[in-house]
Amino acid sequence: MKIAIVGAGALGLYYGALLQRAGEDVHFLLRSDYEAIFQHGLKVFSINGDFSLPHVKGYRAPDEIGPVDLVLVGLKTFANDRYEELIRPLVGEGTQILTLQNGLGNEEALASLFGAGRIIGGVAFLCSNRGEPGEVHHLGSGRIILGEFLPRDGGRIEELAAMFTRAAVDCRTTDDLKRARWEKLVWNIPFNGLCALVQQPVNLLLARKASRKLVREIMHEVIAAANAQGLATPIAEGYADSMLEFTDKMGEYRPSMQIDREEGRPLEIAAIFRTPLAYGARQGIAMPRVEMLATLLEQVAS
Amino acid sequence: MKIAIVGAGALGLYYGALLQRAGEDVHFLLRSDYEAIFQHGLKVFSINGDFSLPHVKGYRAPDEIGPVDLVLVGLKTFANDRYEELIRPLVGEGTQILTLQNGLGNEEALASLFGAGRIIGGVAFLCSNRGEPGEVHHLGSGRIILGEFLPRDGGRIEELAAMFTRAAVDCRTTDDLKRARWEKLVWNIPFNGLCALVQQPVNLLLARKASRKLVREIMHEVIAAANAQGLATPIAEGYADSMLEFTDKMGEYRPSMQIDREEGRPLEIAAIFRTPLAYGARQGIAMPRVEMLATLLEQVAS
Repeated sequence: MKIAIVGAGALGLYYGALLQRAGEDVHFLLRSDYEAIFQHGLKVFSINGDFSLPHVKGYRAPDEIGPVDLVLVGLKTFANDRYEELIRPLVGEGTQILTLQNGLGNEEALASLFGAGRIIGGVAFLCSNRGEPGEVHHLGSGRIILGEFLPRDGGRIEELAAMFTRAAVDCRTTDDLKRARWEKLVWNIPFNGLCALVQQPVNLLLARKASRKLVREIMHEVIAAANAQGLATPIAEGYADSMLEFTDKMGEYRPSMQIDREEGRPLEIAAIFRTPLAYGARQGIAMPRVEMLATLLEQVAS
Repeated sequence: MKIAIVGAGALGLYYGALLQRAGEDVHFLLRSDYEAIFQHGLKVFSINGDFSLPHVKGYRAPDEIGPVDLVLVGLKTFANDRYEELIRPLVGEGTQILTLQNGLGNEEALASLFGAGRIIGGVAFLCSNRGEPGEVHHLGSGRIILGEFLPRDGGRIEELAAMFTRAAVDCRTTDDLKRARWEKLVWNIPFNGLCALVQQPVNLLLARKASRKLVREIMHEVIAAANAQGLATPIAEGYADSMLEFTDKMGEYRPSMQIDREEGRPLEIAAIFRTPLAYGARQGIAMPRVEMLATLLEQVAS
């Protein structure tokens, strides 16, 4: 399959490398890593075993790649205003577009530009960081849940899931993409937000009773907003506790938004906070702690 | 009047200097400023006019001062566990103890150690900062509202108010000290808390619509908790807007808790946050934003 990776950060480089290793025809759209990868290839340091790809197809502009079968979008959402410029040259008649980005609103924005029929959403549970140029560190998990943006027949996402599975990615499908997106927000909103705000990794937030309680309260606000969206199966209250226990095993993990702040990049506040807050408000759900967190993040990012 | 200043930070040095200039017999208990004040006296840079006191009675230990008529307590509340050690040697039969400290619980703690009858509370609206050793900067206001901890006859606080007035301090009395303390919290909780957390002065919080809304929401939580304490006259909702407009005139003012954080000192979280939260909870008042703010401050201070 001819695949283009748009947004080759930690996530895009990691999945792209696994797909290339499994024999797919992967083309990386690169910026800061271009020289390093051109000269030395791509190195993946992974809890599942390190590997190197000496030869990687890297490009500086999408029209050097041309139309592909699959566009894998790993952009930071604050760069979504570049969808048109970065993705249009990659789109042919049968091109599928898979966004593995954070938060809400990405499928909708892609659909409005390129047509809803080609849009697939993926929720990635990946702990990974950038290293030196041309390096990516895989620290944990990596599971992907794929779902169609518009319900359709034909098993398209099952084929994609099979491709990821051949590439050693734990990949499943769901018929309720919206629920999967909100489930991820139950983790992303408190941990990305609080860790970025106080500039501490997840274990320090979980270690103190009051901050652990705050994380749980924020999770419950997100679950309430999620369940007001008309999900086929509501998210159980107990999901918050299972996420806390899951995170207890992550040690000193720094969520992506914390790293973005440390490195002076913009924060993904619209996709992870403001759009979910708007969806909640539309259903009459008050989320005072989530709103306060969004406001404080905007304040420190401004 | 023989007066001892305990807690000679920006507040204690400022009021002590004004009282000495007005002819009172003021004794300063000093730590870091001792050498500078011993050698060069005390300098006050004030919006009302600068002045110097070449000769100041400074001490390193309270037993060098002995019993006084009035102890003026300006300690940071995180040092309240030193009340016994610092104040006991200053207390004689007729000694009055006036606390100008922030937050709730100070009168109660002093009363339990030294007897409720001698305790007077004062709510200070003072914008002041430390400068070099032996210097204090007065940036705005300075008004004091005095109230008895226990209701009593005799005009004792009116005499104190007259003394402060002779010293050019705008000083009034109230028969509802509790209300005055809560009114100050309506300002202190949002501005001390948020400025310390995001490390920005008040004008930056007021400049953005979302953060200004957050300040107002926090003020409304504090007003609701205050009015549940059985005040003779409730605090009006509109008090929040008048405090916002008052603060608009303060420019780039950094509240004391922000300065404490910048200079690596402990934060006054118990007196300004946790005790008011406990008083609110006792009356069934939910304060989700105040509690979140307290939790985040503890997190960054830990």
